[in-house]
Amino acid sequence: MVVERRTAACLAVGSELLGDRRLDSNSLTITRTLARYGITVEEKRVAGDSVDQVATAIREMTSRHDLVVVTGGLGPTADDITRDAVAEALGRSIEPSAEVEGWIRKRYRDLGRRMPDVCLDMARVVEGSRPLRNDRGSAPGLLVETHGRIVAVFPGVPWEMEGMLETDLVPEIAAWSGGAAKISRILLLGGVVESDTEDKIRHLYDRFGRENVTILASFGVVRLVLSAEGDEAAARRRIQTMEAAFREVLGDDVAGVDIDGLAEVVLEGLRRRGQTLATAESCTGGLISADLTDVPGASEVFLGGIVSYSNDAKEGLLGVEHETLVAHGAVSEEVALSMAGGVRERLAADWGIGITGIAGPGGGTAEKPVGLVHWAVAGPTGVEARHRVFLGDRSIIRRWSVNAALDLLRRRLDADR
Amino acid sequence: MVVERRTAACLAVGSELLGDRRLDSNSLTITRTLARYGITVEEKRVAGDSVDQVATAIREMTSRHDLVVVTGGLGPTADDITRDAVAEALGRSIEPSAEVEGWIRKRYRDLGRRMPDVCLDMARVVEGSRPLRNDRGSAPGLLVETHGRIVAVFPGVPWEMEGMLETDLVPEIAAWSGGAAKISRILLLGGVVESDTEDKIRHLYDRFGRENVTILASFGVVRLVLSAEGDEAAARRRIQTMEAAFREVLGDDVAGVDIDGLAEVVLEGLRRRGQTLATAESCTGGLISADLTDVPGASEVFLGGIVSYSNDAKEGLLGVEHETLVAHGAVSEEVALSMAGGVRERLAADWGIGITGIAGPGGGTAEKPVGLVHWAVAGPTGVEARHRVFLGDRSIIRRWSVNAALDLLRRRLDADR
Repeated sequence: MVVERRTAACLAVGSELLGDRRLDSNSLTITRTLARYGITVEEKRVAGDSVDQVATAIREMTSRHDLVVVTGGLGPTADDITRDAVAEALGRSIEPSAEVEGWIRKRYRDLGRRMPDVCLDMARVVEGSRPLRNDRGSAPGLLVETHGRIVAVFPGVPWEMEGMLETDLVPEIAAWSGGAAKISRILLLGGVVESDTEDKIRHLYDRFGRENVTILASFGVVRLVLSAEGDEAAARRRIQTMEAAFREVLGDDVAGVDIDGLAEVVLEGLRRRGQTLATAESCTGGLISADLTDVPGASEVFLGGIVSYSNDAKEGLLGVEHETLVAHGAVSEEVALSMAGGVRERLAADWGIGITGIAGPGGGTAEKPVGLVHWAVAGPTGVEARHRVFLGDRSIIRRWSVNAALDLLRRRLDADR
Repeated sequence: MVVERRTAACLAVGSELLGDRRLDSNSLTITRTLARYGITVEEKRVAGDSVDQVATAIREMTSRHDLVVVTGGLGPTADDITRDAVAEALGRSIEPSAEVEGWIRKRYRDLGRRMPDVCLDMARVVEGSRPLRNDRGSAPGLLVETHGRIVAVFPGVPWEMEGMLETDLVPEIAAWSGGAAKISRILLLGGVVESDTEDKIRHLYDRFGRENVTILASFGVVRLVLSAEGDEAAARRRIQTMEAAFREVLGDDVAGVDIDGLAEVVLEGLRRRGQTLATAESCTGGLISADLTDVPGASEVFLGGIVSYSNDAKEGLLGVEHETLVAHGAVSEEVALSMAGGVRERLAADWGIGITGIAGPGGGTAEKPVGLVHWAVAGPTGVEARHRVFLGDRSIIRRWSVNAALDLLRRRLDADR
């Protein structure tokens, strides 16, 4: 079966996205959603808050793609010009809608706040378009067809955009894929670097096609995206074969499949065993516990953590011996082990993580350079420590450290299984 | 003096940037560099590895902008098509260059590696263009003029791109600004929502120009970007006047000027007073301490934190009374106050932050819905608590909570000044 391949384009509206600080990340969510229906994003753009610029972009994009998804510029303020730009691009009028005004008024009533008059601007509707109710905010979206192509417009706030993407756009495009599927599976690898992984898997490219394997590396975590296309049953069989082949060469580097990150893997492993975890962090300053508790339901297995930034805190809250700190320094294997053991004991957890290092930019010496990090895991069967010098700036060193510590625990949980 | 306003566009080439994981961040560096010379980026795009798509983008962008900066697609592999696309877009031929081949061969000799034959592809030069030597990698860039406009093409690797931007592009554009400058200043507001801020400042738009004020809202923090253009002295005077006028209407909502975030404001305030801070977090799970410790030098004033996810941890590590937990529940003003006071005492800090809430998606009740968060600050002059129901998903509720707690402390530090 041959299925016509549909293409899409993403346009993010907002002068702030043309500055030197912010990127449009909504396009990632949109791309992921469209991929489920075999629709490929072939072009992405950012335009400023100008009717002219946005209208030009919409005209150019609708001339080339089946679907154009626009985000942002739908709010009530003067720089929210997307509605007018859509009207301009398609040569349509724009008029107030009592129905949409009702939605917005209700939203403010529910919040117990007075609706500012300026919000009425959001109740104007492009001729021939379908306004989309926003259950998570006040700015409505819109869906409009032009010459058989669809322009879908959503608010720029990710949480609002994501809701409308599923409820309003997916039903429109679900039929487009016509039975053909592109199936992906993501192998999550922990404690590895990209080039080593590449070396191990290179010989599989010929067998499965280079274009069906994408390597994404991120601070000691590598995601291998495997994909297969075709009718659904064949694609599923193929992806099964691919996973088995890659697992064979990658062994215990594979931390999980189709799972977001190491925090999820660790929490799931603990949950399966009915065990609990506590963390003691110095250089990561709470990032490990923040990562863990970002996962819903973390409270079932994560008891808590101690951020012992000062030496006093390491002694007082974790019971690290003063003598250990003096003899080996705060950044040492001995202190990491003592932190892991200390927090495990104080919180009566099955497992404890301890981590200490020099995140920089200051604080490094010849013997202990910036980037030196010691981490340890204490568990029912003993303690274990590792160390490494990570390269990069403060924030990069901290990200590598978080993943290194989570990966050590992940491997321990796997090994003891 | 009237200076012609020059505009630029950024094009990132690479199919991997059209997937659901990676964003083009080179454009941020480019935007920052161009801003130094008064050049505004008005359009950003991402195109896949297709000669046709990239050529179309270059044609459209050069028809509208004085400068088009293209990154990526210059390597030696089959999917590196940017050179050919530039030739196609400008209707020029492309030919091997012995000089450029020499650069590449030398690069490999210096690395002590054999040059793969495929690298010769990188030695092909677009007719009439100036090839740019790459001191940090092997792929050369190129600079070409067309109808008085410049197309500059750099490798996608940030470190390589950044080097060539400074050595090859800056000399070309430095003269463009002709003494004119665009100066920006960012007012950071804490504990506010966008629409209220908009209401307060709207009357200033006429005076200073709508296009010179951008509002960026992010989970209880609003950044007001004020800008002024003209010759440098005049622009500086104007931005001074703008800041004074906005400060007058915004009052103590203004947390700082040209400062990254509330964590920096709080740390700076504590440093100025020679005081210290400790945190006790439940629903934010370490995000507050992670935010604080992401700032270099945080260790001077931040002593540490306790993530008391379980009730046992709240009692054992923070000294929250068992009776308080039973009588009011873990998510209550009483517990937030007790956490703030407890961590302040246990870590012997001048200030303590306590925060407890229901981040969801589970755990809500009619009386205490998902999103209910209590936070408190304990300091030398007493304790203070606030609460609110934040809307959104788990991660959004947590971001709002972090900023709310930091803002309460920021206001206390300002008030006691």
